[in-house]
Amino acid sequence: MTRTSLNNVTCSIARTVDVLSDAWAWLIVRDVFVGVRRFDDLCHDLSVSRKVLAERLTQLITADVLIKAPLEAGSARFEYRLTAKGEDLVPILATLVAWGDRWEPTTGGPPLYIEHTGCHGASIEVTCTSCGKPVTADTLSTRPGPGGGTGPGTAIIGKIMNDRS
Amino acid sequence: MTRTSLNNVTCSIARTVDVLSDAWAWLIVRDVFVGVRRFDDLCHDLSVSRKVLAERLTQLITADVLIKAPLEAGSARFEYRLTAKGEDLVPILATLVAWGDRWEPTTGGPPLYIEHTGCHGASIEVTCTSCGKPVTADTLSTRPGPGGGTGPGTAIIGKIMNDRS
Repeated sequence: MTRTSLNNVTCSIARTVDVLSDAWAWLIVRDVFVGVRRFDDLCHDLSVSRKVLAERLTQLITADVLIKAPLEAGSARFEYRLTAKGEDLVPILATLVAWGDRWEPTTGGPPLYIEHTGCHGASIEVTCTSCGKPVTADTLSTRPGPGGGTGPGTAIIGKIMNDRS
Repeated sequence: MTRTSLNNVTCSIARTVDVLSDAWAWLIVRDVFVGVRRFDDLCHDLSVSRKVLAERLTQLITADVLIKAPLEAGSARFEYRLTAKGEDLVPILATLVAWGDRWEPTTGGPPLYIEHTGCHGASIEVTCTSCGKPVTADTLSTRPGPGGGTGPGTAIIGKIMNDRS
């Protein structure tokens, strides 16, 4: 986890990656989505220490990405589940899969395929909701919004945005 | 940075977040994309120590996400630029902006707006390349690929995938 909290930075990227503070957080979300939901299973799957896992789970629960719930009503056994906020990270996971497949490939081919239920589509892209075309570094620009400002994390970017307004 | 290297994990998410090891890495990519490209400017913008910044820049250059290039031909002054691999992270940055705007909003409204050049669209979504519809946690499933396996980081997931094949 980044030592400095970025939760007060006036940047939505900073506030997102403050919640997904390191690789373990992303992999926990991945595991819970795929179906690895119990503490001991997460510990085994990730080969992470119980201490680090417990810390990350607490952070993700505090951030309302996960809830800890009884396996079934009245059970003393618990599992972790994605909240609506956590489920909304799943499309981002799909973009991380696509980037990793493309730029950090394993020798044997893709470790898994994603599939869009219904149409059986096997790949995703980030598209503009207006025209439906893929957004790329060349076709994406930024302009200032009302919540922007200068400060730690946006000391210069805040000014650049202001100059663009 | 996660202490354990995840570069050998047979999971494309793990391999991606091994490169984008913490919040600073994402914010450096953000800054270089927006136009903050010199060491001192990055240091000032992010309010990060020179030591941490230098470490992250080295990691991102090693991973071929950034290059360090002369400001102009023959100049002794340098700036950091995104490679094609780095530019391919920009659509993911857009998904992080959208998630942060939705779930970790600032009090004053969005810090910035993204804009799709040409059509002026102001929002993005992750869509299926086959049917064009948005992918969601409910409509995304996974199936095993040839490069999968069990090991640290996929000890259980590897088996789940295998059982689905």
